[in-house]
Amino acid sequence: MDDALKADLIRVAHLIADAARPETMRLFRSAELLADNKADGGFDPVTAADRAAEVAMRAVIARERPNDGILGEELGVQGGTSGLTWVLDPIDGTRGYLCGTPTWGVLVSVADATGPLFGLIDQPFIQERFVGGFGQSEVCGPHGTHKLATRPSRPLKDAIILTTFPEVGTTAEGRAFHAVASQMKLTRYGMDCYGYALLAAGQVDLVIEAGLKPYDVHAPICVIQAAGGIVSNWQGGAAHHGGQIIAAANRDIHTVALQILQDAMDG
Amino acid sequence: MDDALKADLIRVAHLIADAARPETMRLFRSAELLADNKADGGFDPVTAADRAAEVAMRAVIARERPNDGILGEELGVQGGTSGLTWVLDPIDGTRGYLCGTPTWGVLVSVADATGPLFGLIDQPFIQERFVGGFGQSEVCGPHGTHKLATRPSRPLKDAIILTTFPEVGTTAEGRAFHAVASQMKLTRYGMDCYGYALLAAGQVDLVIEAGLKPYDVHAPICVIQAAGGIVSNWQGGAAHHGGQIIAAANRDIHTVALQILQDAMDG
Repeated sequence: MDDALKADLIRVAHLIADAARPETMRLFRSAELLADNKADGGFDPVTAADRAAEVAMRAVIARERPNDGILGEELGVQGGTSGLTWVLDPIDGTRGYLCGTPTWGVLVSVADATGPLFGLIDQPFIQERFVGGFGQSEVCGPHGTHKLATRPSRPLKDAIILTTFPEVGTTAEGRAFHAVASQMKLTRYGMDCYGYALLAAGQVDLVIEAGLKPYDVHAPICVIQAAGGIVSNWQGGAAHHGGQIIAAANRDIHTVALQILQDAMDG
Repeated sequence: MDDALKADLIRVAHLIADAARPETMRLFRSAELLADNKADGGFDPVTAADRAAEVAMRAVIARERPNDGILGEELGVQGGTSGLTWVLDPIDGTRGYLCGTPTWGVLVSVADATGPLFGLIDQPFIQERFVGGFGQSEVCGPHGTHKLATRPSRPLKDAIILTTFPEVGTTAEGRAFHAVASQMKLTRYGMDCYGYALLAAGQVDLVIEAGLKPYDVHAPICVIQAAGGIVSNWQGGAAHHGGQIIAAANRDIHTVALQILQDAMDG
């Protein structure tokens, strides 16, 4: 891929995230915020903001890169002819959004047939954006712009793990998560996609989750790998199809944690 | 208490929080951040930032209100002669601080012999401040200044609860917490003192925690009560001594949740 195309994709990714900001912020912490139940039996709020943001994001792509495909959380798949696909999650962490927390985010990334190439995690309330790919790895927020770099190796017992829900997927998946977490210094919950951003920023060592969709992981993969980290599924394979995900600050802790996950799932 | 004194206490509370901001931010997300183990066996990081912030906060009180007493998390009790005591937690949520999350906060409040009178919850990274008491109830942040008001009554099954750790204190306390949470629509973890701010902002219905210290709860009590909420211990009594705390958006949900907690603790 030539540099002009990379620069254009970076430019458009930022435009897409810029378009989502006012749409997500219009209803955030407002009395009008109403949640739907998307899944029967489960609690999966989809807000008007979620849909409005994806419409605005798709409008940017239609205007700037009409030949690219789109995979969006809310509005599904739209084919393209360029070989490139934008993967969009307008509000990742809708439960956090509903509670008013500053840990949900807008996920934007672009992939080719091999997987995600460039992506960003944007937090519109804080006005903070973590980007990764095409040689870039940085965060820009209320306290300036900084390079991202994941943590160096340290023993599992001295390391920190984040995840969103203590249950972490199925009962077996939850057991495997806690087999890792119970050996670690500190476990924190509730960070939504912001957890992946903190891993890229060198704050924590692991994020382990399960039951993820492709649009949940494409942008985090870009941001974390550009910062020096590793993202895979629990079999050690490609993560961008979703499912069981382990994001690690470095190869050492990835290897150790993956083994514990696999032993727990086999056991 | 006359209006001039109230205005002076409000003024000084903001000065104290202003003094803490640069001290907490200097080490936040820095490589230099080092944690101590304050409690034997437990993981309770106390950072250099925590101490530096409390020193800066105390310097403001020494300069502006030298006759007031101080109770601070890090540096203990200092007697006064005015009958007023400043209650300070320079970094509430040190584990969150250590992980780089934007959910820790600076807690500042002032009490007389009856309990807390005015307080604020400040989040220096977001630059957001929730205040309550002496007729004030507002949040000032990156998206402007807004009035705070807790949520109106709704059934427990439609309500949201926040807490910091899934364990919530002792085994019995954790069981009591989950007796309430399991009947609710949504439970979220990991918000530290920001959870109390979100309750005051009308985003959630309950925060239930245990094992709190007085300096953890004084400021949240002020902010939540000024916004229309109720904070008590699990016996329904005064909350400002710490321990088992329930913060509720309104009287109805406080009554319902308190009964479940008490039944679970008795059972």
